[in-house]
Amino acid sequence: MGERMFKCDTRIRVRYGETDQMGVAHHGAMVNWLEAARVDWCRKAGVPYRDVEAAGFNMAVVELQVRYLCPLFFDEEIRIETMTEKFTRKLIHFHYRVLNRDGELAAEGDTRHLVVNTDLKRVSLSAELMTRFLAGMRPDA
Amino acid sequence: MGERMFKCDTRIRVRYGETDQMGVAHHGAMVNWLEAARVDWCRKAGVPYRDVEAAGFNMAVVELQVRYLCPLFFDEEIRIETMTEKFTRKLIHFHYRVLNRDGELAAEGDTRHLVVNTDLKRVSLSAELMTRFLAGMRPDA
Amino acid sequence: MGERMFKCDTRIRVRYGETDQMGVAHHGAMVNWLEAARVDWCRKAGVPYRDVEAAGFNMAVVELQVRYLCPLFFDEEIRIETMTEKFTRKLIHFHYRVLNRDGELAAEGDTRHLVVNTDLKRVSLSAELMTRFLAGMRPDA
Amino acid sequence: MGERMFKCDTRIRVRYGETDQMGVAHHGAMVNWLEAARVDWCRKAGVPYRDVEAAGFNMAVVELQVRYLCPLFFDEEIRIETMTEKFTRKLIHFHYRVLNRDGELAAEGDTRHLVVNTDLKRVSLSAELMTRFLAGMRPDA
Repeated sequence: MGERMFKCDTRIRVRYGETDQMGVAHHGAMVNWLEAARVDWCRKAGVPYRDVEAAGFNMAVVELQVRYLCPLFFDEEIRIETMTEKFTRKLIHFHYRVLNRDGELAAEGDTRHLVVNTDLKRVSLSAELMTRFLAGMRPDA
Repeated sequence: MGERMFKCDTRIRVRYGETDQMGVAHHGAMVNWLEAARVDWCRKAGVPYRDVEAAGFNMAVVELQVRYLCPLFFDEEIRIETMTEKFTRKLIHFHYRVLNRDGELAAEGDTRHLVVNTDLKRVSLSAELMTRFLAGMRPDA
Repeated sequence: MGERMFKCDTRIRVRYGETDQMGVAHHGAMVNWLEAARVDWCRKAGVPYRDVEAAGFNMAVVELQVRYLCPLFFDEEIRIETMTEKFTRKLIHFHYRVLNRDGELAAEGDTRHLVVNTDLKRVSLSAELMTRFLAGMRPDA
Repeated sequence: MGERMFKCDTRIRVRYGETDQMGVAHHGAMVNWLEAARVDWCRKAGVPYRDVEAAGFNMAVVELQVRYLCPLFFDEEIRIETMTEKFTRKLIHFHYRVLNRDGELAAEGDTRHLVVNTDLKRVSLSAELMTRFLAGMRPDA
């Protein structure tokens, strides 16, 4: 399960417009942060998500799960650890750990994705892209 | 379990800015729609969420789960059915069914909330608010 | 100047996630509301914006201007009056008046749009779409 | 006009959820980017915006203007140059130049802000904060 070993760190700063009148980051902002972390994971694995789309594929989100453990605040720089639980040509499962500025676990998330083509039909990722992803996920990459 | 019986219908139209370059509604928009549906549920149960906040309480989201079943499109009017799975003075669980324009199930969601005060500490909803919610949730309300 | 006469009213409720930690609606939400109002204007003029896109056109925003006069609050139902200052086959200028729940002017906005094709090149709206728009904008429509 | 000399550079990457079905960044995302750039300007001028709020002040946006010159794309790293046109204890005017990945001017923006207190009433920035801002804006800072 070498693919689990590739873990990517992404730093994101909470924007003012991402807060709400409770005085903390709105829970909806998390979804955009997880996405930014996932896109960063792809880039660091050597396959920019633009390449995935350019080849005619999308990783459509079919399941989203977030557990919120402590509030995040305006201008706080958070860190997201992104890793894959499963990465096949048809189905991908990302897991995320979101740490606040003090390094405490602020949230945990999971997204499951189906590989689809531009018509949103289920397909398999091309062998070429899969090879590039697997190479990038190798522990010694 | 009378509270399960109170189900609220909310209609929402997909905004252009809620689409992404896949040509469908972005999965993150769903989180905002579920929130709008939840706020609508409170209003229709007779307790506008502003009253909850005015009394010093918030229903902080501690868990979010969405299963996406089919894409939603720009300008499509969707319908969200909102109901409670659990509604106590400390913990609330909403369940959502999101239907597309053809009445097909497009997504299912769940949000779990802890009742907190304005300092984000866990508290119990006031007896007065609880009474109003329970009255509003009665099947014959 | 018949086109100025067609004015469309759109009602929008401020979402919780559209507030920020100042306790009022975030100024960025306005941009999405003006867009929803503009899409509503097209629909009520008889030309759903989907038809514009289906015919291969987009009304790309090239200028945005908003003056914010008074704050808007969570769950407030606002009303947006949308009208055109200019509507030609190449260039469209919408003007908006945003009223708060008390009917006071809360903001004024303007957006200018260039008609582009799907490659984002400047083109002229088809005669057929233009005819439909002009018919819909007639005062007696 | 020393204050004009302090110019801050902020790099931002276009998120997937910030695109729309035209296949480019949605014009509304710009408003959030300008805000992030402004917050970055404050930090680099030596006065984190949290300090402004902690002292009981807000810089409420009263006017927003954006001219969009060329489209921005998913995952593109843009650069925003932020500078002040005017910075007084009551009124602040920021100007922004947004450059695409090729260094071309993609948009220009302006935001005007009134200094308000936590009740949203117009006030003057404290002498202490003003001193810190002016010190930070000095060309040799």
